[in-house]
Amino acid sequence: MKPQSMKPQSMKSLQRSRELFERASRVVPGGIYGHQSPRFLVQERYPSFFERGQGARLWDVDGNVYIDYLCGYGPVVLGHGHPRVEAAVEEQRRRGVCFPLPAEPFVELAELLVELTPFAGWALFAKNGSDVTTWSLAVARHHTGRSRILKARGAYHGVGGWANPNPAGIPDDERRCVAEFQWNDLEDLERQAQAQAGELAAILVTPFRHDAGHDQELPHPQLHATVRRLCDELGALYILDDVRCGFRLHLGGSGLHYGVEPDLTCYSKALGNGYPIAACLGRDELREAAANTFTTGSFWTGGVEMAAAVATLEELRRLDGCSQMRRHGQRLCQSLAAQAAQVGLEVRVTGEPAMPYMSFAGDTRRQRLRRWCVECLEGGVLFHPRHNWFLSTAHGEEELEETLEVTRRAFEAVAEG
Amino acid sequence: MKPQSMKPQSMKSLQRSRELFERASRVVPGGIYGHQSPRFLVQERYPSFFERGQGARLWDVDGNVYIDYLCGYGPVVLGHGHPRVEAAVEEQRRRGVCFPLPAEPFVELAELLVELTPFAGWALFAKNGSDVTTWSLAVARHHTGRSRILKARGAYHGVGGWANPNPAGIPDDERRCVAEFQWNDLEDLERQAQAQAGELAAILVTPFRHDAGHDQELPHPQLHATVRRLCDELGALYILDDVRCGFRLHLGGSGLHYGVEPDLTCYSKALGNGYPIAACLGRDELREAAANTFTTGSFWTGGVEMAAAVATLEELRRLDGCSQMRRHGQRLCQSLAAQAAQVGLEVRVTGEPAMPYMSFAGDTRRQRLRRWCVECLEGGVLFHPRHNWFLSTAHGEEELEETLEVTRRAFEAVAEG
Repeated sequence: MKPQSMKPQSMKSLQRSRELFERASRVVPGGIYGHQSPRFLVQERYPSFFERGQGARLWDVDGNVYIDYLCGYGPVVLGHGHPRVEAAVEEQRRRGVCFPLPAEPFVELAELLVELTPFAGWALFAKNGSDVTTWSLAVARHHTGRSRILKARGAYHGVGGWANPNPAGIPDDERRCVAEFQWNDLEDLERQAQAQAGELAAILVTPFRHDAGHDQELPHPQLHATVRRLCDELGALYILDDVRCGFRLHLGGSGLHYGVEPDLTCYSKALGNGYPIAACLGRDELREAAANTFTTGSFWTGGVEMAAAVATLEELRRLDGCSQMRRHGQRLCQSLAAQAAQVGLEVRVTGEPAMPYMSFAGDTRRQRLRRWCVECLEGGVLFHPRHNWFLSTAHGEEELEETLEVTRRAFEAVAEG
Repeated sequence: MKPQSMKPQSMKSLQRSRELFERASRVVPGGIYGHQSPRFLVQERYPSFFERGQGARLWDVDGNVYIDYLCGYGPVVLGHGHPRVEAAVEEQRRRGVCFPLPAEPFVELAELLVELTPFAGWALFAKNGSDVTTWSLAVARHHTGRSRILKARGAYHGVGGWANPNPAGIPDDERRCVAEFQWNDLEDLERQAQAQAGELAAILVTPFRHDAGHDQELPHPQLHATVRRLCDELGALYILDDVRCGFRLHLGGSGLHYGVEPDLTCYSKALGNGYPIAACLGRDELREAAANTFTTGSFWTGGVEMAAAVATLEELRRLDGCSQMRRHGQRLCQSLAAQAAQVGLEVRVTGEPAMPYMSFAGDTRRQRLRRWCVECLEGGVLFHPRHNWFLSTAHGEEELEETLEVTRRAFEAVAEG
């Protein structure tokens, strides 16, 4: 553990990161692709490769250490290398990782998820969030005999052709069945849903708006209830895409946090504390449709990831992890706003406290935010200038104190211009 | 290790499998879904859950042990729990499993794959075979500015909407861009490709025909050369779906085995000896299109699976694993045909020796094959009555001897009726 200090850590160098990125650029399109692409970061100041994680801390390949507010973009909900998760993984790994049929943790995990989730009668497992968001649409289509889907404009639901935020290489045909409404505009939601009436298979929403590159937006108090009502009226299914929020707001799913029951819910990210797993849960009435909507993958019944998920959920329950992340997130959010005000800066801290985001008022091109993020980075705290952040249960008082010392200096530096 | 014996092992029971399946059926649609669904096996005689694997052997949850010719439906190419792979995994696991940027094995693996694969200039990693087959179409579409794809009728390329063998829940729109030709019918291939001329983005083929529920078919000597010629003539890309065959026929890709160079190739299954990883490799000319065809996943740069893949490829190279699997597979195939003939039965042993399949002549409903598979199972050898089988480098002389003793008795039992 890094001792508290009044002086910023000085970053050693990023030389090894730069060398590895140069090598990667020769053999990988773009060097690093997808959401981890350096174009979403401040490439010249951020590392490109990490070496090690422990608890709330990450070490880059040059030995610089950071308090990690990305948590692998969500998966790491108990901190890196959590001993109970790793022990469960190690035990299953010794038995074997890939069988032609499931291992016992498959049953344990399905039972545990169904127990934790009041509305759900069953669970199915995959690897990626996209696997289950895409499959949930197919279940809804098969169940309703309809094809149209309604989602919020700009909402990220994965890289299925229907959802991919970048249309390059995707035929128009694949998006023809998807209509959109403006997040939190209840009239538009109503209008768009009614316009699809008779053809609408499902309305798909995230618990709150957490699109990259925007301030986050909590749901209008009537948003989820309106989705529920419209689905009931129109004979469509309510799908909750809980891939990013799942197990950070409520252990029984973010529907419980916002007081609504979906028909299908999609999990991935935090389910296995970093081990690759996804799940779709659904109401009992959809069991038949689910059983007849074919999906599969070579690695989808792997016991290692399922053992990790059982251990993760049990540890989150034991710790009351969602309350803890919320409490520490609230302290972080309130402190950031106060620190900014103290140096005459106005910030907007948005979203749920366990996965907040911050922007500067009037900073439309995120220049100030990028500057602030780099100051934090060089002080030993890893934030992202464009994507929401994540807390884990490993982010305790000590890490918060250290973080707030760094953020305070970063605000001062930004205020100095 | 199980001693050789002239008597069949008697299966203890399947009680624990049955109990677990009953529990699973309450909380998972169909109990077990996808390609592992019991409806593809002889449900009342096969186990439903496995406990442990070591080398070429698998133990079910009731303690019955089998020589495993499924290898997780392909991934386990070095045998279960291979010490070098597990050591590499263990080392990376201690560092951490999920970072917000890649770890060093990302670069090592991309470099190694590009080195092994003569046509390829770059690699990109994902989790599922479906992730990369679907993305490869998008790259081809983006590169060519066209949308149509040609594939073999009935060929399995994953569960993307365009590829899913079961249309339930998939809008017709998603399949509109996909045309089909009859495997090994060069005239039909030519005709279908020419019919799409000017709109054809890619022709996608597997190295040989390995569709479940059919005898396997090696490619016509001119099949791959014809695909190559048509793609060149029509300005389309040649995509090789090497997800199932990859690293069992040739370490540099099955294109090398059949003497042809694709433009894009897709790997998954055997790449990480059971750890969940997939890769797409492409020609240098497609690097720009690839960099601009967005895809991503939360777990796609996980170092554990990449460390597993580096170790797997290096061990396959050190062992000349493809030659070894081919040699042992040939012995298995020849012996099965000879054993059948000895009791007056006619079998067809099809496909590549490292991943063979067998059927009985005239056994159109696979009744004889199911009987034979159950006899083998109860003798301690795991085959599948509908899906091709897989050898690994852990399938050595000892395992073959033991297998052939069991298969001989199974043929006798089938011959007795």
